[in-house]
Amino acid sequence: MKIKTSAMYEESLRNLSPVIYYKGKRINDVTSDPATAPHVRAAAMTYALAADDKYKELATATSHLTGNTINRFTHVHQNIEDLIKKVKLFRILGQKTGTCFQRCVGFDGINATYSVTYEIDQKYGTDYFERFKKWLTHIQDENLMVVGAMTDPKGDRSRKPVEQSDPDQYVRVVERREDGIVIRGAKIHQTGAVNSHEILVMPTVAMDESSKDYAVICAVPVDAPGITMIFGRQANDSRRDNREDLDVGNPSFGAVGGEAVIVFNDVFVPVEKVFMNGEVDFTNDIVYRFAAHHRANYGACKTGLMDVLTGAVSYLCQVQGTAKASHVRDKVTEMIHLSETLYSSSIACSAVGWPTPSGAYMVDTMLANVCKHNVTRFHFEVARLALDLAGGFIATLPSQYDFKSEEVGHMVKKYFSGVTGIPVEDRFKIGRLIEAMTGGTAMVESMHGAGSPQAQRIMIFREGKLAEKIKLAKTLARIPQRKKQTKS
Amino acid sequence: MKIKTSAMYEESLRNLSPVIYYKGKRINDVTSDPATAPHVRAAAMTYALAADDKYKELATATSHLTGNTINRFTHVHQNIEDLIKKVKLFRILGQKTGTCFQRCVGFDGINATYSVTYEIDQKYGTDYFERFKKWLTHIQDENLMVVGAMTDPKGDRSRKPVEQSDPDQYVRVVERREDGIVIRGAKIHQTGAVNSHEILVMPTVAMDESSKDYAVICAVPVDAPGITMIFGRQANDSRRDNREDLDVGNPSFGAVGGEAVIVFNDVFVPVEKVFMNGEVDFTNDIVYRFAAHHRANYGACKTGLMDVLTGAVSYLCQVQGTAKASHVRDKVTEMIHLSETLYSSSIACSAVGWPTPSGAYMVDTMLANVCKHNVTRFHFEVARLALDLAGGFIATLPSQYDFKSEEVGHMVKKYFSGVTGIPVEDRFKIGRLIEAMTGGTAMVESMHGAGSPQAQRIMIFREGKLAEKIKLAKTLARIPQRKKQTKS
Amino acid sequence: MKIKTSAMYEESLRNLSPVIYYKGKRINDVTSDPATAPHVRAAAMTYALAADDKYKELATATSHLTGNTINRFTHVHQNIEDLIKKVKLFRILGQKTGTCFQRCVGFDGINATYSVTYEIDQKYGTDYFERFKKWLTHIQDENLMVVGAMTDPKGDRSRKPVEQSDPDQYVRVVERREDGIVIRGAKIHQTGAVNSHEILVMPTVAMDESSKDYAVICAVPVDAPGITMIFGRQANDSRRDNREDLDVGNPSFGAVGGEAVIVFNDVFVPVEKVFMNGEVDFTNDIVYRFAAHHRANYGACKTGLMDVLTGAVSYLCQVQGTAKASHVRDKVTEMIHLSETLYSSSIACSAVGWPTPSGAYMVDTMLANVCKHNVTRFHFEVARLALDLAGGFIATLPSQYDFKSEEVGHMVKKYFSGVTGIPVEDRFKIGRLIEAMTGGTAMVESMHGAGSPQAQRIMIFREGKLAEKIKLAKTLARIPQRKKQTKS
Amino acid sequence: MKIKTSAMYEESLRNLSPVIYYKGKRINDVTSDPATAPHVRAAAMTYALAADDKYKELATATSHLTGNTINRFTHVHQNIEDLIKKVKLFRILGQKTGTCFQRCVGFDGINATYSVTYEIDQKYGTDYFERFKKWLTHIQDENLMVVGAMTDPKGDRSRKPVEQSDPDQYVRVVERREDGIVIRGAKIHQTGAVNSHEILVMPTVAMDESSKDYAVICAVPVDAPGITMIFGRQANDSRRDNREDLDVGNPSFGAVGGEAVIVFNDVFVPVEKVFMNGEVDFTNDIVYRFAAHHRANYGACKTGLMDVLTGAVSYLCQVQGTAKASHVRDKVTEMIHLSETLYSSSIACSAVGWPTPSGAYMVDTMLANVCKHNVTRFHFEVARLALDLAGGFIATLPSQYDFKSEEVGHMVKKYFSGVTGIPVEDRFKIGRLIEAMTGGTAMVESMHGAGSPQAQRIMIFREGKLAEKIKLAKTLARIPQRKKQTKS
Repeated sequence: MKIKTSAMYEESLRNLSPVIYYKGKRINDVTSDPATAPHVRAAAMTYALAADDKYKELATATSHLTGNTINRFTHVHQNIEDLIKKVKLFRILGQKTGTCFQRCVGFDGINATYSVTYEIDQKYGTDYFERFKKWLTHIQDENLMVVGAMTDPKGDRSRKPVEQSDPDQYVRVVERREDGIVIRGAKIHQTGAVNSHEILVMPTVAMDESSKDYAVICAVPVDAPGITMIFGRQANDSRRDNREDLDVGNPSFGAVGGEAVIVFNDVFVPVEKVFMNGEVDFTNDIVYRFAAHHRANYGACKTGLMDVLTGAVSYLCQVQGTAKASHVRDKVTEMIHLSETLYSSSIACSAVGWPTPSGAYMVDTMLANVCKHNVTRFHFEVARLALDLAGGFIATLPSQYDFKSEEVGHMVKKYFSGVTGIPVEDRFKIGRLIEAMTGGTAMVESMHGAGSPQAQRIMIFREGKLAEKIKLAKTLARIPQRKKQTKS
Repeated sequence: MKIKTSAMYEESLRNLSPVIYYKGKRINDVTSDPATAPHVRAAAMTYALAADDKYKELATATSHLTGNTINRFTHVHQNIEDLIKKVKLFRILGQKTGTCFQRCVGFDGINATYSVTYEIDQKYGTDYFERFKKWLTHIQDENLMVVGAMTDPKGDRSRKPVEQSDPDQYVRVVERREDGIVIRGAKIHQTGAVNSHEILVMPTVAMDESSKDYAVICAVPVDAPGITMIFGRQANDSRRDNREDLDVGNPSFGAVGGEAVIVFNDVFVPVEKVFMNGEVDFTNDIVYRFAAHHRANYGACKTGLMDVLTGAVSYLCQVQGTAKASHVRDKVTEMIHLSETLYSSSIACSAVGWPTPSGAYMVDTMLANVCKHNVTRFHFEVARLALDLAGGFIATLPSQYDFKSEEVGHMVKKYFSGVTGIPVEDRFKIGRLIEAMTGGTAMVESMHGAGSPQAQRIMIFREGKLAEKIKLAKTLARIPQRKKQTKS
Repeated sequence: MKIKTSAMYEESLRNLSPVIYYKGKRINDVTSDPATAPHVRAAAMTYALAADDKYKELATATSHLTGNTINRFTHVHQNIEDLIKKVKLFRILGQKTGTCFQRCVGFDGINATYSVTYEIDQKYGTDYFERFKKWLTHIQDENLMVVGAMTDPKGDRSRKPVEQSDPDQYVRVVERREDGIVIRGAKIHQTGAVNSHEILVMPTVAMDESSKDYAVICAVPVDAPGITMIFGRQANDSRRDNREDLDVGNPSFGAVGGEAVIVFNDVFVPVEKVFMNGEVDFTNDIVYRFAAHHRANYGACKTGLMDVLTGAVSYLCQVQGTAKASHVRDKVTEMIHLSETLYSSSIACSAVGWPTPSGAYMVDTMLANVCKHNVTRFHFEVARLALDLAGGFIATLPSQYDFKSEEVGHMVKKYFSGVTGIPVEDRFKIGRLIEAMTGGTAMVESMHGAGSPQAQRIMIFREGKLAEKIKLAKTLARIPQRKKQTKS
Repeated sequence: MKIKTSAMYEESLRNLSPVIYYKGKRINDVTSDPATAPHVRAAAMTYALAADDKYKELATATSHLTGNTINRFTHVHQNIEDLIKKVKLFRILGQKTGTCFQRCVGFDGINATYSVTYEIDQKYGTDYFERFKKWLTHIQDENLMVVGAMTDPKGDRSRKPVEQSDPDQYVRVVERREDGIVIRGAKIHQTGAVNSHEILVMPTVAMDESSKDYAVICAVPVDAPGITMIFGRQANDSRRDNREDLDVGNPSFGAVGGEAVIVFNDVFVPVEKVFMNGEVDFTNDIVYRFAAHHRANYGACKTGLMDVLTGAVSYLCQVQGTAKASHVRDKVTEMIHLSETLYSSSIACSAVGWPTPSGAYMVDTMLANVCKHNVTRFHFEVARLALDLAGGFIATLPSQYDFKSEEVGHMVKKYFSGVTGIPVEDRFKIGRLIEAMTGGTAMVESMHGAGSPQAQRIMIFREGKLAEKIKLAKTLARIPQRKKQTKS
């Protein structure tokens, strides 16, 4: 763990020189640019907890490769305890940042790639697994942040990669050389990309033989030649960019993951950092293992966020004098209930985890998909309840400039005061925090991060073991188990 | 109808001089300031339709006071047909603006005040009704926009007006003079306030004898001495303020109603514009009649918005090549189903409307409350489904500056293209429209506009005729109808 | 109205001799057999209200054919007022029976056939309309109960009528004679069939040219030669059959519609009672008009049932001492809210009804489908809430034999008593009523009566005017209305 | 494990002589009476699996008291693995019976009493724990079935035990003797009571000093003098009682737990079987520990039931030819999704279980309550979806007597056939199974078993750590952590 503190993490980012555009201009230093700095601070929390005695046990692990103490975010899960510790860690990180801390994407990419490269080698006699372990040892030793880059633009979604009119709509190998490969294409929605050290490229869908050039896993540094990132807009980003500390809501940390498009304009990847190259029959595994790990996380980090939101709303109700109303308590109860329902699936898919042939542990696929799928419903309902309890002022509150204005500041303060004895600033601050956590970008991420709802439904149906369930029903109804009809 | 067109409406606003602050500065011309102009344009649509042959029948009415053709927004409903025409008009206005056109608040205030002043006079021998008709004739003749000002700041919500440590947390009469009254306090969440001509002040809760000074209905011009407005922040308002035509989503019209705080710093109101002054026993009626009319509207205008959203999402799915997937069709079906469920209650509460003693028609209170209550659920679900179908790019799309950038514009366009043959701009525009209609301010307004959910539940329980329902059940179960037990 | 009272209705049934089987035996007199008598009594209520001064205005109408006063259930809707009166009447009938009063199926069949036969004649120069009016005049004059027979068994549902391995899975014409036709097949789920006078056979799906023999509308008496009915099982039917007056829950009226299978074993229908014979291009109209009328009803009658259920639960909470708990009030509020939401769509689809070429009024198809679709959700939720509030004793209460037992009756009474002063019988009776109204058959009917949920979704999508909605969105987003892409 | 097989279990029941009434008559042999035998068979499955090599590992455990192999249902959880094995076992039992296997109530009573008696002794120097271990050793050695008797009738629920007009509405000690105590009162909703060997009486609410006589835990055999049981009615119980093998749906096993009222008419309990006697300060613990264990189970056994239901519906859709329709697959997916969501909480509350001072392991209280609470929603939704897919014939299907009838059997078979090649009997059987699993009693049990929904909400709010959550929110919003305001 060469990078030991959040300060060192920020320092390390300043030593890189990625090409990042935002609102038409280059960002030169992600640690100081107001657009990216709050995201850097959120990711930095993953370094900070590892250095904090209170959280060390959760935030670090012992490398099975080197025996060294490493940051958990660079670890390969060795058992169920590892999986559960991850869940507990993520909830705490969610509670401490109120947002996305980004680093799980690479974490999950590492774990998925680890087990899949092992199995590719078993089948094809390749040496991807050894290459990968070497690269991973480096990541662990240095304590680097990795962005797991999966989602391609996809163009016309009714067509496969090779059927697109523009063949670059999925990242592909455009040249194969002795010493490596050249890739072209883009990855979109890349959480934490601008403040990572390394990119782990993975395919985004299960592919068939027609798509050999698209079946590629490899790693590249974020500032490799040919890479351009474009940082996306978010809800109310100008408040952040203008350093409006009061109106921004969560003044320390960014909204979700600071997503960017990563464009690969013919980027060279040396052979030792290529971990899949045309083995299309393993694309299904890499996608679904990554997805399962990633979906499992959402019941942990988002529960952390909902803990914050529940606290924020409860406090606001105290400020407004409504905390003891029976309908308020009932809605707060519902918020907690839904949060803990989500958390249940994160814990559960870990508790019934299983070892892959490589020794790396996987979460239960069914329960991980169930977990994320509920996020796409319950996070919205929790946000809706929060807005219900918060009241309309979330949408009509004057700006901080008015709050501090000589002309109208006193009126704003007078007419937005609440229960006697609580400073009116509290109401503004907590209101803005709720606004930031319930609107726009924050919710979209819950919907689509780790895969859109339909992606989970497909997996849930596939893993549903319908034939077995039909047998159970027939047995009880005393229907003979004939051979033919158990397709559905 | 002196003001005949939207241009004349804008002109008329330029002749007023209200004191309006926004982000710490004064707004001098609401028709040209980028913060307020889109809201002016939305309200202007209520003038435009009245001048459009296609919509005239819905958008105008015949005054029962003068026999003249007037803008429907200044009309007192004379029958069920009027109520239903209002509903149809509002859906069309929602479809044409994709947002709040603001003018219904005053419309509902007029209708509630009309019938209540009639009944006050009947009981107390006052002459409020005559005063009100005179004022209303003026409003109709001039075709003025009125903001119905009801919601007080309320301070500590567990206390009544007189129990507040600051007695100004509800608007009150601080002086009674021969020629009029002086009022102090504030009204918050005031939709359309900055671009109205006249304010109709009404009490916000049912009050008892202790609150005589707070039981006041009166009208004042928006630029009366002592009035200050502070215009609120909204989600992504900087995009609007910076005239970012692509990123703003709905480039013509504002987000919801352009809400403002109206502060009354000892404002004088001449006696002929005072319509209630201490008759606390009618505060219940004014509040619930206004609320019923207003809640009835939400199933109309919001359905118009959801029509737009359904269309937007359907088009985006065409762009992305997913329009024919069965789950997409199913979700679009659900969006339509929920929208039409809302619309049903708007129509229904009108179809079973009833005449007040004054002759003005009221909607059915139960169904009007049911209508609004469903908005606080189904609009959120419709938005959630829209975000599901739209995909994650709503939250990660680069800005219009990147789209137009020389350095990265071509990459953005390449990697956000969809089905061949549809311009990539379409995807940006429709995506941003969806973003604008589903996040933050837009949703909060659906929750709290016309009253928070709990307000509707109280009315629904109160109007539920439980004693009668208990009788029905007892009859079927052959339980004798004894006298005592029918309290609940 | 030859049949003027419920007694005369029962008498008229005794003059018929339909072949009805139930639990393996023939039922000889439906008015006295314990299995069918409660259903007869529910249908009889449609006669009783027409004779009751209090309800006459809703329950009767003036025939547009003869000018005579007729029972509304035999009327062709002449205007919106007729449609709304029907809705109000049905809610009252639901309240008075707590169950299905069955007669609406024929009522809707009459209305659908009326307008469709008119249009067939316009196109083909046939004389179905005149035949139908003659038949209808007879129905009106006699005040007969008609069962609208639509649902065929359908066999393998992935196949069309002609593709079935057994061609009789849809009712079809097996012989065409000079003086009439011979039909074969069956209609299932036939509400009120055993206590109707006449059967109106209609096709169950839209058909193409391949299905000419299946495109048949005609009328036959219930006791025509070749007809056999088999009466279905229901939840807890033995309590009804054994006349267990306490345990049956609703001792006067049956559970839902007393559904039967009607088998047509080569039944002859004279030519003057044949109203469609091969005009496949009108099968779509007959199905969807009937369905629209029928779906519109469900928001009326079921709301009546939910009124009873809400009253029953409220009373039970009084008995148990929980009526004032805040969560109880909140759940009762929710029950009312959902009921009135359903009612809204019934009223609304009537209020925006429209005249067919024949002059008969149709409800709005979209809103009628929305109405029924919500029944398939909200009736279940209302029942769930009722069971929540009722408590577990609904499922564990000892039988009436134990209640009256010498050995254990005193224990049962002692330990199921509630609030002092309310007889313990009340708790039993109201509990059993809730049980009867929330379990099994009652709920299945809400799901599938008037068409299964997916049938409504198909109509909602079809009527959703997506192309228009896309236009609205494009206009707001300032996207040019190009020609090509508006398919979805 | 003296009782080694299900046959031996049945034999052991025949050696007891409890006083049981049902429908006004005594039941003499629960193993042969058609009313109780199906329940006996379901409970017998807990014996059968322990004797089955395939399930032994889950169904047995090693006693920490004796080191012997015991039936898991008599075990005290020693670690998290025990808790998780229980969950897995219960799901399998649900799958194999399609209903309640009853024995978990005593299992949970044992575990709650074990840890609480330990703590009472620690505080008061009593010897309840030793007495309890002695009794438990006997239960383990004999392998007895214990009914955990908690729910009192409660009379007027707005009053405490001592405030009731009849003091027997909660079980109480009416006499304290040297050698034991005499109890009076009743326990209602007693799952498995009629086929258990022993009753473990526990208090049903947290009590204060006023209720010392009501704070009693003790064990008595089911046939102790003074005990009378009254077996409750269930949905369609006559089909079971009349041995209608086809119509009953689940021909082998009963509907839910065969609940009975247990009346204690001054029953003597010897001192060595008294485990609490007046220590009111521990009533809270016994209630909430029992409840937590019991609520945890519902996500396991009910998931097993839903597995069966999902299979049944899937098969029925094959029979009807609809299995491949996209909406059918989507609804099946939803059924699975909801089932697995429930299962998640059962697993999760076990995986984060914790040791009590006695060494016995508890599940996490929050997650266990969340688990049960979701059952009260999702089981209903799963049932609703099942009924949607099954179709209306569930409610209208003729009886088995008609199916077998000479006169009409051929018609019934002809018109209820489905896809060619699948016997029509299959459709009947699977339809009846779905009917049995979705209506009436089955659903009520999911609602109220292990506590009504509001009981869970109270716990969820109480365990919600709101003060901590408020702190998190304040930290992020940069609000100082002042002392006073953190009550809510």
